[in-house]
Amino acid sequence: MTEVSLHKPYPAAEVSQWDFETDVAVVGFGAAGACAAVEAAASGAKVMLCERNSGSGGASALSGGEIYIGGNGGTDAQRAAGFEDSTEDFEAYLKAAGGPYADHAKCELYAREALNHYDWLKAQGVPYRGNYLAGKHIEPTDDSTLIFSGSEQAYPFCEIAKPAPRGHVIQHMGWGGGRPLVDILEQKARDLGVQVVVDARAVALIRDEERICGVIMRIDNQNRFIKASKGVVLATGGFVMNEDMRHRYCPDTFKIKNPIGDKDDGVGIELGVGAGGDAIHMEQWFTTCPWTMPEPQAYGVFVNETGQRFINEDCYHGRVSRFAVDQLGRRVFLLLDVAHFDQPLELAGISIAGTGETWEEVERELEMPEGTLSKTMEFYNRHAREGNDPLFGKRTPILTPLDQGPFVALELNFEHSYFSFFTLGGLRTSTDGEVLDRTGAPVAGLFAAGRCTSGLPAWGHGYSSGMSLADCTFFGRQAGRKAAAG
Amino acid sequence: MTEVSLHKPYPAAEVSQWDFETDVAVVGFGAAGACAAVEAAASGAKVMLCERNSGSGGASALSGGEIYIGGNGGTDAQRAAGFEDSTEDFEAYLKAAGGPYADHAKCELYAREALNHYDWLKAQGVPYRGNYLAGKHIEPTDDSTLIFSGSEQAYPFCEIAKPAPRGHVIQHMGWGGGRPLVDILEQKARDLGVQVVVDARAVALIRDEERICGVIMRIDNQNRFIKASKGVVLATGGFVMNEDMRHRYCPDTFKIKNPIGDKDDGVGIELGVGAGGDAIHMEQWFTTCPWTMPEPQAYGVFVNETGQRFINEDCYHGRVSRFAVDQLGRRVFLLLDVAHFDQPLELAGISIAGTGETWEEVERELEMPEGTLSKTMEFYNRHAREGNDPLFGKRTPILTPLDQGPFVALELNFEHSYFSFFTLGGLRTSTDGEVLDRTGAPVAGLFAAGRCTSGLPAWGHGYSSGMSLADCTFFGRQAGRKAAAG
Repeated sequence: MTEVSLHKPYPAAEVSQWDFETDVAVVGFGAAGACAAVEAAASGAKVMLCERNSGSGGASALSGGEIYIGGNGGTDAQRAAGFEDSTEDFEAYLKAAGGPYADHAKCELYAREALNHYDWLKAQGVPYRGNYLAGKHIEPTDDSTLIFSGSEQAYPFCEIAKPAPRGHVIQHMGWGGGRPLVDILEQKARDLGVQVVVDARAVALIRDEERICGVIMRIDNQNRFIKASKGVVLATGGFVMNEDMRHRYCPDTFKIKNPIGDKDDGVGIELGVGAGGDAIHMEQWFTTCPWTMPEPQAYGVFVNETGQRFINEDCYHGRVSRFAVDQLGRRVFLLLDVAHFDQPLELAGISIAGTGETWEEVERELEMPEGTLSKTMEFYNRHAREGNDPLFGKRTPILTPLDQGPFVALELNFEHSYFSFFTLGGLRTSTDGEVLDRTGAPVAGLFAAGRCTSGLPAWGHGYSSGMSLADCTFFGRQAGRKAAAG
Repeated sequence: MTEVSLHKPYPAAEVSQWDFETDVAVVGFGAAGACAAVEAAASGAKVMLCERNSGSGGASALSGGEIYIGGNGGTDAQRAAGFEDSTEDFEAYLKAAGGPYADHAKCELYAREALNHYDWLKAQGVPYRGNYLAGKHIEPTDDSTLIFSGSEQAYPFCEIAKPAPRGHVIQHMGWGGGRPLVDILEQKARDLGVQVVVDARAVALIRDEERICGVIMRIDNQNRFIKASKGVVLATGGFVMNEDMRHRYCPDTFKIKNPIGDKDDGVGIELGVGAGGDAIHMEQWFTTCPWTMPEPQAYGVFVNETGQRFINEDCYHGRVSRFAVDQLGRRVFLLLDVAHFDQPLELAGISIAGTGETWEEVERELEMPEGTLSKTMEFYNRHAREGNDPLFGKRTPILTPLDQGPFVALELNFEHSYFSFFTLGGLRTSTDGEVLDRTGAPVAGLFAAGRCTSGLPAWGHGYSSGMSLADCTFFGRQAGRKAAAG
């Protein structure tokens, strides 16, 4: 009898009895799995949705419920706030955000379809207040809809695509909109008759002569055989919680300490590769440290241990944080004047490393050589007073001279500060969510979506908030629909 | 009938007739394949060695024939020059050179065994003059043996392991010792009765119920079935010549333009993964631009487009080049005074971007803002005069004030200068050269060595010359011996 393994599909011929029979089996009940299930069920397929936890959620429920949407002249919220957002600009931004790792076909399709996707989300019952919240926010602290959630206004992105805010947040008071987002999608799935099975962990795919035709789930400590006549959709998240996989594919992440995820152990990637799928860009990861909270701190200047700046600090907090972690050494410093300093968020683990009436004093307190940090700030201030950042292209209003002491240097320490992170690499999929093999051909019967795939959020240096949920929800739908079509 | 595919082993049961029968089939006739064949044959196995080109060589023959060797108190050449090299220091250096990607088991084994390996190379007929050549060389231009070929004397490596030169170059006048090295190994293989078949391209592995038991080679435009009762050794090189694979696994390399390899299209990686092997660290790559030729230019200072230094320039040229390519923008500048300037090697494609009697003049010629490059050099010179580089830890004698004009700024342009590169990621293997699957278990009957594996040279930022040939030759031998043992 063939061994049951994550790494090799189990032969259908050896299944003595099917415990469940369905058209489409979806593995993982975050936003990607929920959308796949809803769309497959709406297409008329019988759908079974399995989740290893005792309820829906996944990493999606840990998020802010923010979805990156634009193009086609803009959403209602964008237009109401005066932002026309062309499909060309949206597409150009998505491609720039993916950098060398961008999947151009996915960027192009999503840029064309995002407005329809927004309508679909609303049709499922996801509420949006519809207003725009100006400023620099990680997420709205009220129930606002629209924020600038990436590097749209920052160099070089602002020269590649006309800036527009595109982060659309579910109407929900305060942080944590991901939970109600998944709840709404879950209700829709249940309304459509999706069979939900929780406390069910995937242990193997099943293949017949022609295709993936089922999945073995561990339920009540027994292997249960699920026949999925039309296909299996993997939506199991990334591998940030799997240290062995991180050692093999993404070891740079060990420089920081705060993985975020919900049992994201890469099981879907292993299942997909074991079935012949290709895993790409496995070394890519997102990180951020919440240094823009309180918001005035967004106006600071970052220097590395040699006292040099390394990025235009008006970029998205995740882009700045990713460049920070790339610096040699164990930490970077956020330099602020008294007008922009407030007590950092306690969670952030950001400490005060030095203070002074002058930047020379701060430099000495940090034990940096004379003429390093102080010269950096002299140069920065001289140009900031004229509204320029000739080195990195930082822009007003965040470009502000920091020349009225007292001053403070906050330490963002890679080991001790809260640099949260998750992985971005995963299965290579078509725009229809088909898992592709190493020749680019679909693995028949196998689909995937969300962070077990490489998708819109492909590059930590270019990520914007809302890109992962955009990818999960839109390409989750694509996968569900394609699977249901058999 | 099953399709013949790189991506899936062909069933032995469907082979109607074996065209060749051997114990061990080796695919690829660079240094790794040659050493595998020699060792397998020396173990008593019948060996067939296939090569897609019309003769031996591979990327090894394009190299300098330099092998990284040390430990156990030092080789004859090291000891004659006064360098005792402990196994602990050697191992610590190998691990630091691999950074987050280091395979500790391989580093530990090679550190213990490198002296025996050196003896083995000599026993095969590889000649070494035995002398030490001081200075900063990419390769000796005479027939000298021993050079500092990495970052041993540079921070932080010099604090991790006591510096010793470890690049051992075959006795050969001038550059290009890789060719005679392979020739000697080829002769040895032929003397041992290895059957060599050239113009033979691998198209599929063959598997029976239990293991990889052969390989299909394309010879004279026909598929030829080779039975390898004890195993197949893949030694086909990296994937630097395969643009599709680079897009999927190593897209950062598209920033530069000069792949070096010999039909290195990743075929062995594809064969190995198709048989269930794991490919790791696929995003890692080596690059170098020959800016230390002529040698006085090694004494220069690098700045990026913002006029900032980014590395201690006394590191290995490949490490400096790799950090250079990491910089934002399209180029970096090498700053020199007249005492250290000579016409750059024409091949390098390095141009003069600016000159001046003062660094301020150079700064203006490069159209950098006032107080950037000039302040960088003022700070550098002030400390260099005291023998210090407080920012990056550069050391004398390469740490030299550059304060007597006229000055020159050379431009190393990522598009137009000669940044050669090759890939470092590949199959995960045991220290015995067994191809490992994603659980870490050997794929029965399948072995690999050289750049189709991830080995000693795992990290472009830590590479030293001679590490790849050390890995190819030593772990090629390991793979050949293990395969022959059945």
